[in-house]
Amino acid sequence: MIEFQTAGESHGKGLVTIVSGFPSNLKILPGYINQQLKRRQAGYGRGLRMKIESDQVEIISGIRFAKTIGSPISMIIWNKDWQNWKDILSIEESIYSTEKISIPRPGHADLVGSIKYNYNDIRNSIERSSARETAARVAACTVARRFLEEFGIYIGSYVESIGGVTGKNNLDPFVTSKINIKRISNEADKSPVRVLDKKHEEIIIRKIKSAKKKGDTLGGTFYIIATGVPVGLGSFASYNSRLDADLSHAIMSINAVKGVEIGDGFNSASKFGSEVHDEIILKNNQITRRSNRAGGIEGGISNGMPIIIRAAMKPIATLMNPISTIDLHQFKSVEARRERSDFVAVPACSVIAESMTAWVLAKRFLEKYGGDSIEETRDNYNNYMNKIYSRLKKNFAK
Amino acid sequence: MIEFQTAGESHGKGLVTIVSGFPSNLKILPGYINQQLKRRQAGYGRGLRMKIESDQVEIISGIRFAKTIGSPISMIIWNKDWQNWKDILSIEESIYSTEKISIPRPGHADLVGSIKYNYNDIRNSIERSSARETAARVAACTVARRFLEEFGIYIGSYVESIGGVTGKNNLDPFVTSKINIKRISNEADKSPVRVLDKKHEEIIIRKIKSAKKKGDTLGGTFYIIATGVPVGLGSFASYNSRLDADLSHAIMSINAVKGVEIGDGFNSASKFGSEVHDEIILKNNQITRRSNRAGGIEGGISNGMPIIIRAAMKPIATLMNPISTIDLHQFKSVEARRERSDFVAVPACSVIAESMTAWVLAKRFLEKYGGDSIEETRDNYNNYMNKIYSRLKKNFAK
Amino acid sequence: MIEFQTAGESHGKGLVTIVSGFPSNLKILPGYINQQLKRRQAGYGRGLRMKIESDQVEIISGIRFAKTIGSPISMIIWNKDWQNWKDILSIEESIYSTEKISIPRPGHADLVGSIKYNYNDIRNSIERSSARETAARVAACTVARRFLEEFGIYIGSYVESIGGVTGKNNLDPFVTSKINIKRISNEADKSPVRVLDKKHEEIIIRKIKSAKKKGDTLGGTFYIIATGVPVGLGSFASYNSRLDADLSHAIMSINAVKGVEIGDGFNSASKFGSEVHDEIILKNNQITRRSNRAGGIEGGISNGMPIIIRAAMKPIATLMNPISTIDLHQFKSVEARRERSDFVAVPACSVIAESMTAWVLAKRFLEKYGGDSIEETRDNYNNYMNKIYSRLKKNFAK
Amino acid sequence: MIEFQTAGESHGKGLVTIVSGFPSNLKILPGYINQQLKRRQAGYGRGLRMKIESDQVEIISGIRFAKTIGSPISMIIWNKDWQNWKDILSIEESIYSTEKISIPRPGHADLVGSIKYNYNDIRNSIERSSARETAARVAACTVARRFLEEFGIYIGSYVESIGGVTGKNNLDPFVTSKINIKRISNEADKSPVRVLDKKHEEIIIRKIKSAKKKGDTLGGTFYIIATGVPVGLGSFASYNSRLDADLSHAIMSINAVKGVEIGDGFNSASKFGSEVHDEIILKNNQITRRSNRAGGIEGGISNGMPIIIRAAMKPIATLMNPISTIDLHQFKSVEARRERSDFVAVPACSVIAESMTAWVLAKRFLEKYGGDSIEETRDNYNNYMNKIYSRLKKNFAK
Repeated sequence: MIEFQTAGESHGKGLVTIVSGFPSNLKILPGYINQQLKRRQAGYGRGLRMKIESDQVEIISGIRFAKTIGSPISMIIWNKDWQNWKDILSIEESIYSTEKISIPRPGHADLVGSIKYNYNDIRNSIERSSARETAARVAACTVARRFLEEFGIYIGSYVESIGGVTGKNNLDPFVTSKINIKRISNEADKSPVRVLDKKHEEIIIRKIKSAKKKGDTLGGTFYIIATGVPVGLGSFASYNSRLDADLSHAIMSINAVKGVEIGDGFNSASKFGSEVHDEIILKNNQITRRSNRAGGIEGGISNGMPIIIRAAMKPIATLMNPISTIDLHQFKSVEARRERSDFVAVPACSVIAESMTAWVLAKRFLEKYGGDSIEETRDNYNNYMNKIYSRLKKNFAK
Repeated sequence: MIEFQTAGESHGKGLVTIVSGFPSNLKILPGYINQQLKRRQAGYGRGLRMKIESDQVEIISGIRFAKTIGSPISMIIWNKDWQNWKDILSIEESIYSTEKISIPRPGHADLVGSIKYNYNDIRNSIERSSARETAARVAACTVARRFLEEFGIYIGSYVESIGGVTGKNNLDPFVTSKINIKRISNEADKSPVRVLDKKHEEIIIRKIKSAKKKGDTLGGTFYIIATGVPVGLGSFASYNSRLDADLSHAIMSINAVKGVEIGDGFNSASKFGSEVHDEIILKNNQITRRSNRAGGIEGGISNGMPIIIRAAMKPIATLMNPISTIDLHQFKSVEARRERSDFVAVPACSVIAESMTAWVLAKRFLEKYGGDSIEETRDNYNNYMNKIYSRLKKNFAK
Repeated sequence: MIEFQTAGESHGKGLVTIVSGFPSNLKILPGYINQQLKRRQAGYGRGLRMKIESDQVEIISGIRFAKTIGSPISMIIWNKDWQNWKDILSIEESIYSTEKISIPRPGHADLVGSIKYNYNDIRNSIERSSARETAARVAACTVARRFLEEFGIYIGSYVESIGGVTGKNNLDPFVTSKINIKRISNEADKSPVRVLDKKHEEIIIRKIKSAKKKGDTLGGTFYIIATGVPVGLGSFASYNSRLDADLSHAIMSINAVKGVEIGDGFNSASKFGSEVHDEIILKNNQITRRSNRAGGIEGGISNGMPIIIRAAMKPIATLMNPISTIDLHQFKSVEARRERSDFVAVPACSVIAESMTAWVLAKRFLEKYGGDSIEETRDNYNNYMNKIYSRLKKNFAK
Repeated sequence: MIEFQTAGESHGKGLVTIVSGFPSNLKILPGYINQQLKRRQAGYGRGLRMKIESDQVEIISGIRFAKTIGSPISMIIWNKDWQNWKDILSIEESIYSTEKISIPRPGHADLVGSIKYNYNDIRNSIERSSARETAARVAACTVARRFLEEFGIYIGSYVESIGGVTGKNNLDPFVTSKINIKRISNEADKSPVRVLDKKHEEIIIRKIKSAKKKGDTLGGTFYIIATGVPVGLGSFASYNSRLDADLSHAIMSINAVKGVEIGDGFNSASKFGSEVHDEIILKNNQITRRSNRAGGIEGGISNGMPIIIRAAMKPIATLMNPISTIDLHQFKSVEARRERSDFVAVPACSVIAESMTAWVLAKRFLEKYGGDSIEETRDNYNNYMNKIYSRLKKNFAK
């Protein structure tokens, strides 16, 4: 079973991740991971931090001569700004007194973290609950992405809306069964807001500018799509093995995400059954579907069609024009702290969501196909794929 | 850690569940569980099956003199119709030949299950992927519900829309911070479609009747609300410990659910940050919020406000007026099988979702408070709750 | 991943188990499981209970037409004596007053259970901590045993000593690399104390008789051996994935087991390295070992040689001639309760240990080979096995 | 739930560990951890490596101002010799050709690892299967040790025998119920072979010298003892929750350990029941035992007496005077590689075993007592401990 753990505070020495369970002999290089880290940092409307960072991963273990060796892969993304924080986040007891933060921001973990963990400084909450942690997730999950590529599985995403601004010519992912998500996602990468239409991009940027001016922030919605996923990942055997539940968990675990849909999601709830379910058809003697409103999952199992997920990110909670809160020191109402932060992070969020999707798919993939080396896993995969039709026909012959 | 497993086929001997990890001395009786099983079976638009069933749980172990004893609780819901199925689902090799199902229904696990598990009869897919399994889940999760009641935590739900028919006077759960979910959910229980408004109910029933006439089916949307949840369940420490991710997983794992939101969900994605985040205020010297658009969770942790979840159920996939599919026996296109089934199961789905929500909350609750007897857990809980304010004030005093 | 849970009290309605994660199309019948249940009940020196029981499993789900279907397998072993216990272990509140047990037996969970779970009757401790629970384990693990047989993996055991009486001509499992464990274990089954030598059996039975007469009890030691285990189960990648650690956990989890060894175990600690490690040799161009003191595991991974485990069972804790304890009611010293019980259960323990061993091996086997149907798993297994030599030679060619 | 993962190759950049799930506000400093790392490196008979290393931990995250903050703790032990290995273990593809190892050492993972992971260089097996990894475990588990100290739980160890040389005046841990393990373990630390008797030490050192001269190696046996463990850790409710099984897993997962006993272990298997079980007595109105042959665990649950574990370590598998093996390159019989290595590592092994024991106890402790800050956990612990007697008396009053 693959697993990953992350560690690290937002302004600490660095972010650490340990990734375990992948087969040996999978080719992977730091450059490949850095490319995804870069995608996560891009986007119009980000704060100053993104420029300081320019994340680079240092691989500590688990890879030799550009290949996995079956042992846990550990990586660090060092914090380039650590020198400015080493007193504030000192590991040892500090001789300097540090300013404590006592005013929790609504929409953040500031207050709940302080109560839960009995903190005397909201800083402790801020540091770990920050979305900075997702850089480590992207690093970890990029191993999964690399793994899936070996089997022709690609995961991409694009932004559907920011601040409620939806494009006119948005792609309908449910009708088009043949989606080249690699191409689409690359195109989205060229846009600073990761949309697929120039006009749409312009209106969004205008909206972001107006939000900035007001010291306000925005959220948005986006699609994650995975193609090449074989029939049979996940299971209906137990509520704990359903692929849609796993994906939903993974996406909802991303900071600021408040909604997740598989396929046509909430829309399907207002349609008739005959309008929703995807007819099973034969095309060149292969089984396929006339549509993909199910988003590639039926009964908790991948059905061979593209996996389609849509998610909603709420607006960033740190505002320059802040709303009411309380001061825990004085125990009275005050304005929330003003702080420099991102104004919009939807493009980054979509890249993180791709990463988490890759993780879930790789987990269920390896569970099904097993294997301790990429060669063994590939043999198992090919064997299953090659026999699908012969087995189906033989099983139902009589 | 609490865990549950279910077993059992839709038309098999019965459904079995084992529930483990609850403290001893929790009062619970079969009648309490049966009440929830009954709620799951109710609702306008259900098929014949619901009448046959009238589910009753038989407790096999883990409870003595109406109290848990710390050992695993096992329960069976016997299938009253088993006599009619014992040849079709025979455990031993059968001397009778049984008709095999070879025509997969779109929207079901029929096809994917057959490929994944190398079946020669779609029946095997149907039996375990059926929503019948959720009866066992409700039984299991009702132990969690009972447990939470001991701490003043109540979970209820109501239907928001069926077939796209949304009521005019729907409750706004985000503005009203004082929600009596017990009362609301009881009221919903009185409606055959679990809505809160008579007018709304009438239009929905009309819609269902028209769907029935066309041999079609409907889905819908509903809210699940939990009140009394203490600050501090779940954590931002790891993506695997976030309460919102857990809840999302639990709800999405329910058959036919295709979308999940926490709090204002997708709506929040089109608003400004200042419109979304819930101001922290003091009221009678207690910390509270002016609104609850976050749905009771910030940074993956419960914040003391009601937990609010909204979910979408797609229309039932078994249609009387079926759509195209293929016959695996002849390997050619045909119409899907016509089969008696529910036309709408949104009310049932909302009850199942309550149950799953109870499970997640109980899991995170016990993780935080520990305890091997209900008395020990209560001591721990009281101690934490009583000290929240004194600790906050002491911590931030200087 | 395969998992099992058991539930049920010693004198309750029955024992329940749910087994999940096995591939579909594995042949299995109740009779096969009952055979193992019978082996668990045999043995000279057992108490009355064994005669009442004669355990039979009722399969509730997961098996159709004598084959697994991929969904969870649930089974019940009904308690034939339940009528005599239904008031004492009533699920509902009882109108009869039941005698409470307040005198804990040393060596049992009586006292610790009462403190941990805040019981007011030691009966609650007795019921779940009883070794009766292992009947459910044997039922569950026999699915694993059946699964392993498909791949030529056999697990058996024999008793080495009871009450310190060791045979003179005991098998040396480390020297003989060619062990027919099926034959050996069958032979052990013919002995009422599961030893391999008639003379040895006689002396043991004499020892048991003398213990009985004194109202005392005995323990013993035994070997569990698995043959046909392929190279590569378990891993050194993490302390959590080592096969020897897993096996040790499984065996030590059995009631009354106090010691576990892999291979030459404690003996190897007093030898030189050159005397302990098993030379790697070529035999008919196949890699093998000159001895098997490692017990088939190196670096936490199976090495293709027989897996050899030795375990120690302490004497039964319920004595007819009891030792000192206290009465919790009067809070003063008394003698422990006299109770009918087994005098020796080492033969049963060895069968339970076989079962747990089967479980661990099946878990690691499926983790490595994957597969959702037995056909898919077999393909994967064959493929790996057939390529071991060609891969080794190719990899090390240059 | 607490968890740890380690990563890192023996000669790689460093060893990484992530430790998660501990409550906040636990005091801990690098110096405390380094002290345990130093204990792990000590001992007569170690190879050259121990001098190069002198392990120091660098804490990357999870600790601020010398206290945990509830977020994952990550640590690195940098390899001071990395410069000499950076080409051999290069992360990126190397331009230099590196000598491949093709001769597997018996008793190591060399051969099994190469087959399992499809390696073309035994080096990959060596690096991760090396006991060097246990340095990271010690670092991780020392957080658990620190945590347990807060509750008066101390864990220590001493060596019983090396190469079969057992002392004459060895401590009998089962009779003496009052064990000051801190003092005993400190005394053992003063001996280069961690024994408690000067005479014993001398004979052992002589034995090691003679082994060295022959190019041979030795193993040994040792005791791990934990005092102050409260009644009630672990459970009989499931085979997966037993404390003895957990401990057995943890100890057996250590490189070269081949046997584990709880309490009197294998010895108890040859005694009568009346000789083995520990009488329950009252002493100053407190419940205690006349002996502790159970090793502090009954029914899988800690009973308040010292936890006593005995383990066996086989001799080091790398020999200067090597035994037969094969060369995978030439596919013919050869002698195993001669390599500098430790001659004896039993003292180190005992320290590692202490660490793993601390981990298991902390895991079960936190499961029982819960808490997100050390203050909350302490409240829960005190509350339970203070009520044990009053609850027992009240429960059994009538």
